[in-house]
Amino acid sequence: MAIGVIATLKIQEGKNAEFEQAFQGLAAQVNAKESGCVFYALHRSKSDPQEYKVLEQYATEADLAAHGQTKYFQEANKAMASLVAAAPQIELLDAV
Amino acid sequence: MAIGVIATLKIQEGKNAEFEQAFQGLAAQVNAKESGCVFYALHRSKSDPQEYKVLEQYATEADLAAHGQTKYFQEANKAMASLVAAAPQIELLDAV
Repeated sequence: MAIGVIATLKIQEGKNAEFEQAFQGLAAQVNAKESGCVFYALHRSKSDPQEYKVLEQYATEADLAAHGQTKYFQEANKAMASLVAAAPQIELLDAV
Repeated sequence: MAIGVIATLKIQEGKNAEFEQAFQGLAAQVNAKESGCVFYALHRSKSDPQEYKVLEQYATEADLAAHGQTKYFQEANKAMASLVAAAPQIELLDAV
């Protein structure tokens, strides 16, 4: 069954541009390399400029697990750790 | 700029199957007919079986507005009004 993800990220003030650039580099790799990733797109809250939501869908749980294991994801996570204001909140959903 | 949407729907107990069938009929039409709709997919919460989230993205604000004006969306909304337990919550996001 396909899996949806809403990842909510809070970014430190003044770090938005650096975060967006880092994330777009990650998203380009995900979309180019992960055939099991159906959708992966960064969005910014309209009410809180420091809050971002990544809307994601994977064809299977294995595809989601593989995503988290890629070297570029782990490296991007490490790079973005100094830009976030709090730990990311990850909501997993069952596609219907 | 592309627009993301997270639509949260609470469905009455016992109405899940009827809701899912009605929504999938709507989603099929959206995906077939709306070239400005990039992503439109129903998901069910893993923690609350009565809660659903629709993850959506539109190429432009005009595409989102056009979506809401289609006859099939308005008819589906009317049909689903008797299945929801509360008014839908709609969160709009700016794609980055």
